[in-house]
Amino acid sequence: MKQYITQDPWNIVEEGFHRDHNEITESLMSLGNGRIGQRGNFEEKFTGKTLQGNYVAGVYYPDKTRVGWWKNGYPDYFAKVLNAANWIGIDIDVEYESLDLNTCDVHDFRRVLNMQAGYLERSFVATLKSGKQLKVNSKRFCSIVDDEAGVIRYSITPLNFDAKITITPYIDGTIRNRDANYDETFWDEVRKETAYGEAYIELRTRKTGFHVASGMCVEIEQDAAKVDYQSQPIKYEKYVANRITLDCWQGQETVIYKYAVNLSSLNYDSDSLVKEARQYIQRITRKGFDKMLFEQKQAWADKWKMNDITIDGDVAAQQGIRFNIFQLNQTYTGEDERLNIGPKGFTGEKYGGSTYWDTEAYCLPFYLSTADQKVARNLLVYRYKHLQKAIENAQKLGFRAGAALYPMVTMNGEECHNEWEITFEEIHRNGAIAYAIYDYVRYTGDELYLVDYGLEVLIAISRFWSQRVNWSKDKNQYVMLGVTGPNEYENNVNNNWYTNYIAAWTLRYTIEAVGKVKALNPDKYADLIDRIHFREEKEISTAQHIVDNMHYPFDDGRQVFLQQSDFLDKDLMPVSDIPKGQRPLNQNWSWDRILRSCFIKQADVLQGLYFFEDEFDTDTLRRNFDFYEPMTVHESSLSPCVHSIQASKLGMVEKAYEMYLRTARLDLDDYNNDTEDGCHITSMAGTWLAVVKGFGGMRVDAKGLSFRPYCPAGWQSLAFKIRFRGVLLQITTTQQDVTVQNFSQQPITLRVHGEPLIIAGNSQETVVVKELA
Amino acid sequence: MKQYITQDPWNIVEEGFHRDHNEITESLMSLGNGRIGQRGNFEEKFTGKTLQGNYVAGVYYPDKTRVGWWKNGYPDYFAKVLNAANWIGIDIDVEYESLDLNTCDVHDFRRVLNMQAGYLERSFVATLKSGKQLKVNSKRFCSIVDDEAGVIRYSITPLNFDAKITITPYIDGTIRNRDANYDETFWDEVRKETAYGEAYIELRTRKTGFHVASGMCVEIEQDAAKVDYQSQPIKYEKYVANRITLDCWQGQETVIYKYAVNLSSLNYDSDSLVKEARQYIQRITRKGFDKMLFEQKQAWADKWKMNDITIDGDVAAQQGIRFNIFQLNQTYTGEDERLNIGPKGFTGEKYGGSTYWDTEAYCLPFYLSTADQKVARNLLVYRYKHLQKAIENAQKLGFRAGAALYPMVTMNGEECHNEWEITFEEIHRNGAIAYAIYDYVRYTGDELYLVDYGLEVLIAISRFWSQRVNWSKDKNQYVMLGVTGPNEYENNVNNNWYTNYIAAWTLRYTIEAVGKVKALNPDKYADLIDRIHFREEKEISTAQHIVDNMHYPFDDGRQVFLQQSDFLDKDLMPVSDIPKGQRPLNQNWSWDRILRSCFIKQADVLQGLYFFEDEFDTDTLRRNFDFYEPMTVHESSLSPCVHSIQASKLGMVEKAYEMYLRTARLDLDDYNNDTEDGCHITSMAGTWLAVVKGFGGMRVDAKGLSFRPYCPAGWQSLAFKIRFRGVLLQITTTQQDVTVQNFSQQPITLRVHGEPLIIAGNSQETVVVKELA
Repeated sequence: MKQYITQDPWNIVEEGFHRDHNEITESLMSLGNGRIGQRGNFEEKFTGKTLQGNYVAGVYYPDKTRVGWWKNGYPDYFAKVLNAANWIGIDIDVEYESLDLNTCDVHDFRRVLNMQAGYLERSFVATLKSGKQLKVNSKRFCSIVDDEAGVIRYSITPLNFDAKITITPYIDGTIRNRDANYDETFWDEVRKETAYGEAYIELRTRKTGFHVASGMCVEIEQDAAKVDYQSQPIKYEKYVANRITLDCWQGQETVIYKYAVNLSSLNYDSDSLVKEARQYIQRITRKGFDKMLFEQKQAWADKWKMNDITIDGDVAAQQGIRFNIFQLNQTYTGEDERLNIGPKGFTGEKYGGSTYWDTEAYCLPFYLSTADQKVARNLLVYRYKHLQKAIENAQKLGFRAGAALYPMVTMNGEECHNEWEITFEEIHRNGAIAYAIYDYVRYTGDELYLVDYGLEVLIAISRFWSQRVNWSKDKNQYVMLGVTGPNEYENNVNNNWYTNYIAAWTLRYTIEAVGKVKALNPDKYADLIDRIHFREEKEISTAQHIVDNMHYPFDDGRQVFLQQSDFLDKDLMPVSDIPKGQRPLNQNWSWDRILRSCFIKQADVLQGLYFFEDEFDTDTLRRNFDFYEPMTVHESSLSPCVHSIQASKLGMVEKAYEMYLRTARLDLDDYNNDTEDGCHITSMAGTWLAVVKGFGGMRVDAKGLSFRPYCPAGWQSLAFKIRFRGVLLQITTTQQDVTVQNFSQQPITLRVHGEPLIIAGNSQETVVVKELA
Repeated sequence: MKQYITQDPWNIVEEGFHRDHNEITESLMSLGNGRIGQRGNFEEKFTGKTLQGNYVAGVYYPDKTRVGWWKNGYPDYFAKVLNAANWIGIDIDVEYESLDLNTCDVHDFRRVLNMQAGYLERSFVATLKSGKQLKVNSKRFCSIVDDEAGVIRYSITPLNFDAKITITPYIDGTIRNRDANYDETFWDEVRKETAYGEAYIELRTRKTGFHVASGMCVEIEQDAAKVDYQSQPIKYEKYVANRITLDCWQGQETVIYKYAVNLSSLNYDSDSLVKEARQYIQRITRKGFDKMLFEQKQAWADKWKMNDITIDGDVAAQQGIRFNIFQLNQTYTGEDERLNIGPKGFTGEKYGGSTYWDTEAYCLPFYLSTADQKVARNLLVYRYKHLQKAIENAQKLGFRAGAALYPMVTMNGEECHNEWEITFEEIHRNGAIAYAIYDYVRYTGDELYLVDYGLEVLIAISRFWSQRVNWSKDKNQYVMLGVTGPNEYENNVNNNWYTNYIAAWTLRYTIEAVGKVKALNPDKYADLIDRIHFREEKEISTAQHIVDNMHYPFDDGRQVFLQQSDFLDKDLMPVSDIPKGQRPLNQNWSWDRILRSCFIKQADVLQGLYFFEDEFDTDTLRRNFDFYEPMTVHESSLSPCVHSIQASKLGMVEKAYEMYLRTARLDLDDYNNDTEDGCHITSMAGTWLAVVKGFGGMRVDAKGLSFRPYCPAGWQSLAFKIRFRGVLLQITTTQQDVTVQNFSQQPITLRVHGEPLIIAGNSQETVVVKELA
C-alpha cells in the first residue's frame, strides 16, 4: 500500500517527483477516449523507470501461446493489446544537454490528472548538469470530440540563461510489448513521410495486418506569436521527427503545440490512411488547442452530469469513486460495438485480450445505469456478433449442433487465454453472457432485444450446457465434472455450485425466452428456429429434465450450498488463521497448497447468490456469507465489491465499508502492489456497484426500481445518479434522510426502503429514514 | 504403425534407404555405452530429414521454464538433455560434388544395428549428379571398454572414376536442441586446437558451466597401407576439422579411421580436459579399430550371457525383446551413481531431465535381475544423494521438519518439470522411491541398505505424507486432496486410491524399517535419529494413526477400489465405445474432455494392485482389472506392460499377449507415431517385466524366488536369465515343460508353479507342466 497521491475531490495529484513510483503514477494518470489511450508518460526523454504505453482500441497481436506441453485444443495465441507508436514524444536539448528528469535536478514538480476536465498537466523546473534551469509546463489530452486525436501544449522557459534550444517532436514506432511471450516485435513499417512541421508514419501489425497511421503537426509560439521555425526532417527505421532549433531567451516562454492523430484500418481503408491522417491533422490544427480543450471540458461536464457520485465528509472515498468512474468513461464509450472493456483499458498491456466475463458481470450494470441504453446494448451485440466464433470454439472442444462456448478472453471472438484450467474449464463465463441478456432486458424492458439477438445466443449457450452435463448413475442426477468456478483458487473441480446453478438457470431462462419471443414475434421466431435448426420440443424437454434433476452440492448440517463436491473434505479455517506474512497467498504459497486449501480468491457461491438473489431468502444469504466470507482472501480485484453489496444487504455496515475501501482505492493506493502494470479497469465498475447497489441498495425487478440507501458512518452524504428507462435520477442519502431528484420530464414511481414513492418530473422527494435495514 | 524394419533375431535392419523415415531409423539405430551416446546419423553431409544427436551423460542445460502465467513455486527451469558436439562428421567431396544422400541416387543401401556385437554398419552406392559412382561402407560404435570413446571405420571406393576426393573429418559444436524453449544456444566455445590429423574443441554449457572436450584423430589407409596424407586444419566458431585431399582410383578402397573422445568436467579437471583428451585419443589410436571392435564384441557377449531372452517361433517378438534389452544396456550401466536413465536415453532429446519415477517403478527390477547388485544399489544411492534437494523441494511447497518430496523429473535433485498439475500434484512418485527401497531389499536381502541409506529416505518421505494428508471432519478419515495419480488423464483429483495407498504403505514400511534398523544396528540408528531430529514415538504414532484411518474410495456395489473420489459420477463406458478415428485421445480430444471422461491413460488402481499384489487376493485383482482395463487407452508407453503382467496372472493369456505386443515393438513399429523423437527407453524395462514377471511369472517374496512360466500360443519356447542373490539362472518354457538351469556353483531352492524345486549348482531340472494356471 502506497499513499503518495494527494487526496483531492477532482484531481489525482502527484506533488514532487516520485521517481521510484513513476510506473504507478503513469498508470494512474492514463488518458483515453475509448478510441485511443495512453499512460501518463513524459513527453521529453526519460531514462528512468517507465513503461511507455500508447494504445489504439481494437488493434492487437496474436502472440504465440507459451506452454510447457501442448495439449489438444489449446488456443494458438494469447492476444496482446498492442503497444502502439509513441506520439507524445518531444525531446528537448539545450545546446549539448538533454532534458531528462532522470539525470537532472527536479524542483517544483507537480503532475495532475484533472478528472473534471479530462486532461493531464505537469509542471517542473529542471536544473541541468551545467546549472541551466528550465521551467516546463505540459498539458495534454485525448480528445473526446475528435476521438482519434491527442494534443499537447508543451512550454519551456529558460530561467537563468539564453541558448539555442533544439526541440524534436517525434513519432516512434520502435516499441515493444514488455510482456511479449518470445520477445518479438509486433510492428512492421509500411511508409513514412515528413513535411514542414509535419510527420507521418504508417505501421502494420504482424500476423493480424492492422494498419495504424500516426501523424503529427507542430506549431510553436514565442511571445504569444506563432514562430516561423526551420525544421529538419529525421527518418529512422519506424521513427519520424522534425528537429527544430530556436533561440530562446531567459524568461521567455516557448510553447510547442503538438497535434497528433492515430487512425487505424479498423475505421479507414488502409490504402488511404496517411492521406486521411493528414486531413485529420489539418482539421484539428485549424481548430487549435484552446478550442479543443474547451470542447474537452464540455464533453466531460456532460459525462459527469450523468454519472457523478458525490461523497461529503470523506475526500479519500470521493477521490476514489470519481477516479473509478473517470477511468471507466475513458476506457469505453459504447460508440463502437466492435470494442469492449479490456482489463487494463488504456493503462497498461498486461493480461492481453479485451473481453473477459468482467464485462457482463461487472461493467454492464455500470453502463446500463450511467449511459445511453445503446451503450449497454452494444456490449450485448458485441457478443452476438461473436456467436459463430463461440460455436466454433465449442466445436474444437467436441461440442456440436450449434452449442456455443464463449471464450474466457478474446479480441475477435476466438479464445486466446493460455491455461487449460481456465480456457477449457472456467465455463461459467458462458452463463454470465446469458445473464447479461437477462440483466439488460430486466433493466431496460427492451424485450425486443430477445427477438432480434438474445434468444439466438441463449439457445446456443443452452445447447452447450445440455451437452456439458452428464448423468451420474451414482447420484441419479446431472453433474458437471471438471470445471473451474469464479474462485480460481480451485481448478478442475466437480459440481461447482455456481456453475451448476447458472447452467440450469440459463436453461430455465432460455425456455422462458422462447415463450416470450414466440408471443412477441412468431414470424421472426419461426425464421430463427429454422435457421439454427432448433428442435423446440426435444431441446426444451431435455433442458427441463436437466433443470429438474441438476445436482447442487449442499451441506445439510450447516444448511449452506457447497462450493463444489468434496468441499467439506478440506481443512476449513478462517483467513484470520493464516500466519502473518503469508498473504497474499498467491505470492507466498505454492499453487497446490492454495488449491487444496479452503481459501477463496473471489465470490463463488456468493456470486451466485448475488446474481440470483431473488431466488434465495436473506437467511440463506446470511448463512452462506457467514460460512464463505471468512475463508475469502479477496485476492481478485473483483471480489470485495460483491461482498460489500451483500454485507450492505445483510446490514453488516462495517464489513460493507471495509470491502468498499478495498475496491475504491485499489489502484490509487496500489493495494495489490501491481498498479505499475496498469489500473484494474473492470473492477472499477464493481466499485460503482458497491456504492449504488450496496450503499444505495438499488434494485430493479418486475415491480420496478427500488432503493434502500444508507450513508456509511463518517460520511455526511452520498449522492449518485441513475438513468432508468429515460429518466435521470439523483439519489442523495444523509445519515437522516434520502432525497430522490428527478431531472426528467416524466414522473417515476419507485420504492425507497420498501415504501412506494412517486416523483413528478423535474422535482424531488425526501424521505426521513427511521431505521437502517 | 510402420513396418519397414526387417525382422531378424539379432539385428535391426533397414534395407534400402527410407528417406521419409530417416529420423525414426536414426532413433532406432542409436548407439550408447552409458557414458556417451548418439543417434544413428550419417557421417557424411546429409541435407535431408535428420535429427543430429550426440549426448554426454550427466551434461544438461537448465532451460528457462515456458509457462503462460507464473505461479508461486514453479520450477525455474526445465532441464534439457544437451545435444553435444557432433563428433561423427566426415564430409566427402568428389571434386566439386558433395556426397549427400539427399541429392544423389542411392543404391544398395543397407543400415544395420548389430545388437549382438554393439555396432552400427551402413553400406550403399551413391551416384552423384555427374554420374560418378561411389561405394561407401561405414561401421562405428561407442566403446564399452573405453567408454568415453567412439570410433568409426568409413571407407569409400570410386566405382567408375578416378578423382581427387576431399575428406573432411570434423567436430561441430554449432548444434542446438530442437526443443529449446526460447531458441537459445546452450554451448559456448572455450578453446580449440588442431594438429596433424588431430583436432580438439572444448565447449562449456551456459548457466551450468559443464566443460566437454571432444577430440579426434584420423588415420587413412589405401591398398591396406597407411597413407601419409596432407591435412589442412580448419577452424570456425565452435568447429574444427582437417581437410584431406587424396587421389583415389577406380576400384580402390580408401579407409578412414576416425577415433573420437568426449571427456566432460564431471570426470576430469576442466583445466586439463584437452590434454586428457589428447592422451585418450593417442591411447585408443594405438589400440586401433580392430582391437577395439574385438573388445566391443566381447563386452556385448558378456552382457548377453547375463540377460538375453530367447523366443523360438516368433522372430518379431525375438527382435523386439532383444532391442529393448540392448537399448537398456546402452543407456545405463550402473557404473556411475551420479547417472540415471533418461526417458529417451541417448536416442533423442525430448522430455528432458534424466530421472522420472520410471526408474524406480520400471527400470529397477530389470537391473536387479540382470546386472550386478551394485547397479540397482547405485540407482537407490542416486536418490539418497538427492535427499537434501528433495527436502528443499518440499520446503518450497510449504512442508517442513525434514519432509522430502522427490522431483517429478530431475538432473541434479532439483525439480525441473513445468506443469503444476504434475510438478506439484503427481506426488505418488515419492511413494515409488520408497517402494524401490523395499523392492531392492526384498530381492537382494540386503537389509543393511536400510541402515546406511534407506531408513533416512523413508523417514523423510513419510514426513511428507504425514503433512500432506489432512483430516476430513466430514469423513472422519484422512484424505489427500489435489493430486494427480499415475493416470495423467486426471488432474487435481481428491483421494486418488493409488496415492492414498502408497502413502499409507510408505508409513507402514517406515515403521517396519525403524524396527529393523534399531535391531540391526542400534548405534547407527541412534546417530541417524539424532541427526535428522526423528521424534520416534510421536512420528510413529502419527504415522500409525494415518495408516489406521486413511480414506480409500471404494464402490460397494462393484466391490472395486475407486480411482478417486467422485469417479462414479463419470459417464462410464468402455474404450470400444469411442468412435473410430478419435484415438489416440490425446491427439483428438480436447484436454478437458479427456479429463472428465472415464478413460485411463495408464495403470492407476491397477498399478497399486501390481506393486502390492501380496496384499490383495486374485478375485480383487480380477474385479478391478475387469472394471478398469476396458476403460484404459494405454496412451502411455508404461501402460501395457503392467496390464500384460496382470493378465498373465489372471490367466487371460490373449490379453497378456496383446498387451505384450504393444510394448515389445513400440519403437520398432513406431506404434505411437513418435519414435522419430527418440526411443521409449524406460518403458523397455516394462517389456522385460511383461516377459519375466508376466509370461515367466517370476516373484520374490519372504519364501524366496518363484516362477509360474507359460509360453504364449505360437511360441515354441521362451528362455530368460535371472540373477538372484549370486545365482545365475535360465528359465526355459515350452508348451510342455519348464526347465530351470543353474549356471552357478551354489544350489538354489525355488518354486515352479507352486512346487518347490531344488536345483544343484551347474545343473538343471525340468518340470512337465500339466495345466497352465
